[in-house]
Amino acid sequence: MNSIPQPTTNLMLAHPWWQREDLKYINRRLYLAGQSLEQIAKQVGTPTFVYSTQRIRENIKRLRVALSQTGLEFDIYYAMKANRNPSILTHLAANGDIGIDACSPKEVLRAMSCGFSAEKISFTGTSVSMDDWNFLYRQQGIKINLDSLAALKNYGAYGKGKKVGIRINPALGLGYNDNTLLRYSGTEVTKFGIYQEQLDEAMAIARFYDLKISRVHFHTGCGYLNQQLPVWDEILAASLEFIDRLGNINEVNLGGGLGVPHTSNDAPLDLSNWKKIIHRHFKGKNIRIAIEPGDYLLKDAGVLLLQTVYLEPRRDKFFLGVNGGFNLAIEPGFYQMPCEPTPCVIKGNKKIKVTIAGNINESVDIWAKDIDIPEMNTGDTLVLINAGAYASAMSSNHCMRGEFNEIVIP
Amino acid sequence: MNSIPQPTTNLMLAHPWWQREDLKYINRRLYLAGQSLEQIAKQVGTPTFVYSTQRIRENIKRLRVALSQTGLEFDIYYAMKANRNPSILTHLAANGDIGIDACSPKEVLRAMSCGFSAEKISFTGTSVSMDDWNFLYRQQGIKINLDSLAALKNYGAYGKGKKVGIRINPALGLGYNDNTLLRYSGTEVTKFGIYQEQLDEAMAIARFYDLKISRVHFHTGCGYLNQQLPVWDEILAASLEFIDRLGNINEVNLGGGLGVPHTSNDAPLDLSNWKKIIHRHFKGKNIRIAIEPGDYLLKDAGVLLLQTVYLEPRRDKFFLGVNGGFNLAIEPGFYQMPCEPTPCVIKGNKKIKVTIAGNINESVDIWAKDIDIPEMNTGDTLVLINAGAYASAMSSNHCMRGEFNEIVIP
Repeated sequence: MNSIPQPTTNLMLAHPWWQREDLKYINRRLYLAGQSLEQIAKQVGTPTFVYSTQRIRENIKRLRVALSQTGLEFDIYYAMKANRNPSILTHLAANGDIGIDACSPKEVLRAMSCGFSAEKISFTGTSVSMDDWNFLYRQQGIKINLDSLAALKNYGAYGKGKKVGIRINPALGLGYNDNTLLRYSGTEVTKFGIYQEQLDEAMAIARFYDLKISRVHFHTGCGYLNQQLPVWDEILAASLEFIDRLGNINEVNLGGGLGVPHTSNDAPLDLSNWKKIIHRHFKGKNIRIAIEPGDYLLKDAGVLLLQTVYLEPRRDKFFLGVNGGFNLAIEPGFYQMPCEPTPCVIKGNKKIKVTIAGNINESVDIWAKDIDIPEMNTGDTLVLINAGAYASAMSSNHCMRGEFNEIVIP
Repeated sequence: MNSIPQPTTNLMLAHPWWQREDLKYINRRLYLAGQSLEQIAKQVGTPTFVYSTQRIRENIKRLRVALSQTGLEFDIYYAMKANRNPSILTHLAANGDIGIDACSPKEVLRAMSCGFSAEKISFTGTSVSMDDWNFLYRQQGIKINLDSLAALKNYGAYGKGKKVGIRINPALGLGYNDNTLLRYSGTEVTKFGIYQEQLDEAMAIARFYDLKISRVHFHTGCGYLNQQLPVWDEILAASLEFIDRLGNINEVNLGGGLGVPHTSNDAPLDLSNWKKIIHRHFKGKNIRIAIEPGDYLLKDAGVLLLQTVYLEPRRDKFFLGVNGGFNLAIEPGFYQMPCEPTPCVIKGNKKIKVTIAGNINESVDIWAKDIDIPEMNTGDTLVLINAGAYASAMSSNHCMRGEFNEIVIP
């Protein structure tokens, strides 16, 4: 009765592009940080996010090594908006070599509750309300970056004589695959940071309130890889114009946005090139560098496990339905980010071309269209890689399908 | 020091297009269902959703009157995915003239917990898992619509001899402003419902498991208005081909998707035309009609109150920042749905052209671009109308900016 088409193509299963030492098939079963993902799915059920703190530490270390080679003093702040899992934050705080980039009062509180001292926290918010300011005024030691003239005035009214940072807008932007949804500045006027032509007024406000602008912050996009490095170069050059005009800047926060590969066509970010650009612009300036990675630290350290609930031909396509939808990981549905699904256990020697559908009653709830994966059966566990960042953190309970487990491998 | 441009345009403030008897300015203050929204904002703070159950009842009544005029038997099921606020659901259950369209086990439980009996609940899910089925098997009295061959088999394995509905896919879709993000069927192959060419197999599965297909369900898009009614006509015609082939169908669920105006260019859905189309296709067929509105009942019954936290020129634009972002109401940011912001209290006689920015550190977090609104000051309450549906229900805690109040006016 069932007309499911038979898999027809031989498959080179051994080495999907994303395999690495701590995320690979062993005897056809996918392991993350030494743990069988199938075993986890059996024990705790699905949907389940699994995160490896070992991978996070490796990602941090790679950045530290690259930044060390610039000869510049530097700090790394983890952009916790990417993933605020308390266990992960606790590991990071205990690790000691990283701070937190927070963007709301509740994020500051969460970071503190997981062991970050105020000195380890950098705050850069937008549309900061008076309620937010009343909280922030009380936080001694947190580095505050002010993203607008209004923010300068609101903070100045409280913080006479204090050192502050300002977020600048270099009017240049970059993002994964030149995706405009991921650009935070550029030709279109955005809400983020003080523009060049606003700088005189910003400096006048600072003088009026006796604020010392000692830090410059910018963040210009998300997910940049090697093809965006020429724009990255331009952005750093543009930031120097602000820094020169401001004078007395001893710290520059280059923001986050460092991307990870999402498809087999993406090469990993070339940190040797990246750090050379930083070195070239900031050497000999006696300026401390900061960066705020989110995706780069967390995205490839996490996977999402879902269960296959049906396989069925529909017109000229073959659909694979799973027990989780775009409300759990919004990037494929809404940001047009590619998604890499793969079976937890490879059972056959063939592959199938599938369109993967979630369990939300909305047409955007499609994980991937017409992709080739090793053949699967109903009940099998599907793994979405690159689910460590901007997935659980942005999840909703739409259709009351928002429940999931999170397992942190220490 | 502040270079905020002065408002320059005279304004006809008296009658914004969306004003109506229960949502209008009285002495320059906006009231919903007799309540001053400014008073609510002062008492409970912001962000706050305010819903009027009176408006919901009026929206239901308007549909009941139109459907009554068809002479056909009918039921209305509220698509609770639009807004699952327990107080609203409790009012609807107590009102007695409406059922619930649920799409997940947790939605079924929520409906029951607010007073809906099983007989009042219609379930239409997608990618329904075995865990879901094991729950649904136990629910006596709920109307189950099966959206795929796999679902027919899974339900059939349990439900021998039972009456069921099937969701069909007429390969035609429609949505607000012909927005493809809101189409649930059409030329692109979607995950929803059984296609014409699958119908023989569906009927064979039903025979095999002794299921009686007595109901047909379809839902083809969201937010349709008058310009989409010709397609609506085609869709009903297409559904009759399925109904004729199936035989013994005594109920047709036409789904939801009825839209409300989002801009001054949108006319309200012409129910007299809408119901004529239904009447023309289904008269004399001894078929009971069901519809599943969500937006149509809830969207214009709710508003979102936010606080203005800054006003500032940025390049050639003027930005107004508020203390809530796209994570509270996702449609403007991600579905390109228009947003209608307006001051809670009209203070001056002029208007300003503003770009309205939320408090989330993402470039998509813009409520509206370059729109004219009556002038506002920092601290003033901004009202987003049409926030009753697919806003709080889809909200996330992104950036830990996800807290809000909900006030239900009985």
